[in-house]
Amino acid sequence: MPSIYFACSIRGGRDDAERYAELVAIIKQHANLLTEIFADGKLTAMGSAGKSSDIYTQDLAWVEQSDAVIAEVSSPSLGVGYEIAKAEQWGKPVLALYRNQEGKRLSAMIDGDPNVQVVHYNDVEQAEAAIKLFIKALA
Amino acid sequence: MPSIYFACSIRGGRDDAERYAELVAIIKQHANLLTEIFADGKLTAMGSAGKSSDIYTQDLAWVEQSDAVIAEVSSPSLGVGYEIAKAEQWGKPVLALYRNQEGKRLSAMIDGDPNVQVVHYNDVEQAEAAIKLFIKALA
Repeated sequence: MPSIYFACSIRGGRDDAERYAELVAIIKQHANLLTEIFADGKLTAMGSAGKSSDIYTQDLAWVEQSDAVIAEVSSPSLGVGYEIAKAEQWGKPVLALYRNQEGKRLSAMIDGDPNVQVVHYNDVEQAEAAIKLFIKALA
Repeated sequence: MPSIYFACSIRGGRDDAERYAELVAIIKQHANLLTEIFADGKLTAMGSAGKSSDIYTQDLAWVEQSDAVIAEVSSPSLGVGYEIAKAEQWGKPVLALYRNQEGKRLSAMIDGDPNVQVVHYNDVEQAEAAIKLFIKALA
């Protein structure tokens, strides 16, 4: 099974935490998930305890170790944008999942990136279909 | 004068647009600013007109063309996180300016990045001092 780095907003805000947990449950059925802790419902926007430099080192090591990155990009997040660029730099396939929201638009730096597979979704079933196809193509 | 790419939230949200304009005015006194349009008060979170792929290509060309990047990182933004990683990849010095906000924390991927100079500020005078020092060190 491929190893997946799931990226989502943490200090950027946890409004979508329930959806992260749903997506993580789906990913775990098809892949080895490296970042299950990011979907922890107890994690707040203050993030994990510990020094930022330690978190940075650990998270980047997981990106490097992964076969591919699945990013939930419905909420703005500096860390998720940073991780997508790193994954791209290291030649990892990236799937970016964006839930359509009235009056909002996905960043042009993600939406316009030719190396990122962007999927706009309305419900979790659509995101699930995209995740399955993405992971299947990694094999 | 060095060429500076000023990065700030656009589709992530324009709550800090007034501060962006203040910082842009400071940068222009000391450097050739490539991205004055990002501080335009008329720019909304819907972003510029035009295709995301065109914006992506233009913005990355400016990052590549710049001598250094100054990023305002007080609001979460996928694009700013992405651009910081690209600047780092291309060996550009990066200054990240974060306004201290109660109950919020800067992303660990920016705060913990050993290649980014992070300055936490309370008022624009502190940000101005950091900008001057950063640009002076480029010479």
